[in-house]
Amino acid sequence: MTQTADVTASALDEALVQWLLRIGDTSLILGHRVSEWCGHAPVLEEDIALANTALDLIGHTQMWLGLAGQIEGKGRDADALVYRRDAMHYRNLKLVELPNDDMAITVMRLFLFDVFHQALIEGLTQSKDPRIAEIAAKALKEVTYHLERSSDLVVRLGDGTQQSHDRMQAALEHLWPYCGEMFWSDAVDETLADAGLAPHPDRLREGWLATVQDILTEATLKAPEGRLDVHLGGKVGRHTEHLGFLLAEMQFLQRAYPDADW
Amino acid sequence: MTQTADVTASALDEALVQWLLRIGDTSLILGHRVSEWCGHAPVLEEDIALANTALDLIGHTQMWLGLAGQIEGKGRDADALVYRRDAMHYRNLKLVELPNDDMAITVMRLFLFDVFHQALIEGLTQSKDPRIAEIAAKALKEVTYHLERSSDLVVRLGDGTQQSHDRMQAALEHLWPYCGEMFWSDAVDETLADAGLAPHPDRLREGWLATVQDILTEATLKAPEGRLDVHLGGKVGRHTEHLGFLLAEMQFLQRAYPDADW
Repeated sequence: MTQTADVTASALDEALVQWLLRIGDTSLILGHRVSEWCGHAPVLEEDIALANTALDLIGHTQMWLGLAGQIEGKGRDADALVYRRDAMHYRNLKLVELPNDDMAITVMRLFLFDVFHQALIEGLTQSKDPRIAEIAAKALKEVTYHLERSSDLVVRLGDGTQQSHDRMQAALEHLWPYCGEMFWSDAVDETLADAGLAPHPDRLREGWLATVQDILTEATLKAPEGRLDVHLGGKVGRHTEHLGFLLAEMQFLQRAYPDADW
Repeated sequence: MTQTADVTASALDEALVQWLLRIGDTSLILGHRVSEWCGHAPVLEEDIALANTALDLIGHTQMWLGLAGQIEGKGRDADALVYRRDAMHYRNLKLVELPNDDMAITVMRLFLFDVFHQALIEGLTQSKDPRIAEIAAKALKEVTYHLERSSDLVVRLGDGTQQSHDRMQAALEHLWPYCGEMFWSDAVDETLADAGLAPHPDRLREGWLATVQDILTEATLKAPEGRLDVHLGGKVGRHTEHLGFLLAEMQFLQRAYPDADW
């Protein structure tokens, strides 16, 4: 009996580590992409807002990956997980690794992700694992604000000039086929959902579609007719070429000067 | 007497190592930039020609940096020098680290550099150091062909459509203020020139200007009136931010998997 319980606990921990890498890596890579605007955004207000968003996301990363390393028990902390893994070991959604390209893509991606993220984090505050519930409780206020801000920008830019409208519509078409991965699930997600640790991704789809549709309508934008789940694989380590270049830059310092301190 | 001769020999070797890093790093970084077009150039013929040029330049790098490591005597081979130095230890011209941006910048930069490079390599075939003369003799045919090809392209694109003309003129204006570093010199260059090992950079300026002027005239392009020597410092390790990003990508594999072999 004890042995069976141990095996089960160990299988749950294994799924939990994978799940934590997925949520932590997704926050990290999106945070890194958003941070690329620091000093480059078109208006000062937006530059600072984006930098703050990046900091929030990287703050969440530290908590998620810190917990992942702790449960994994191999002596890797959040820094080790961030700076010493190559692309095939990353578990983020493909959506967040795509280049920023322009403000339309940047803002639209934040919006599409924020709708999902806010519902996910809200669900996680009810997790049966108090460590997860605690991180979610800390993140919820920020994540709710992210959604408020990105929804507002989508409406202003979508229902703005002809140019801003067209660029937002193009961004939406570009990102849409990557959105389905947010609701894609495998045994890891099933295990977490069955144990009451996290909402099943599939259960977030309907609410996401409804909220996205409301905001798009207000923004005079049109939801694409194509499938959402064209580009999958990020959650199991199959990434676009963009992630490798992002990691090469992000990891340079720790790779070139291992264990450098200051 | 012996001691003085030794000190002199050691000072010469020190200058020689610096000089070899300059020429080797310049070939390497330009080769890397050119290689970035591999699989992306606008026409197949040009894609293959650029890849070949990159291979030539990286071949020269192996010879120059191989000799640098040998004379330095610290056990660093060409690979160690390429993959384990950070930006401030690189000694390439700033001209070659600038991003490719487009084909106009790419072709114009190759041309402006090739005119200098061909004269330099030709001069080096007469070096009193047989190791240098031998590398130069091996490189001369390729470098002469590079110049033939880039001159030809400058004429075809400069004297082409209005758009190709305008883009080539803009590329020329952009690159011109970086060209002066090719003729800039310090004690390292003086030492090499005095010892009969390499032409003094300043002595290559007049021939460069004349050849460049001829080709620009044929290409219906106009030499900028501004100074050539606005952006200096690459030869002594002061680089643009672009070099750091280039190195992060170029060095990723060796940094992430030190001493990886295959």
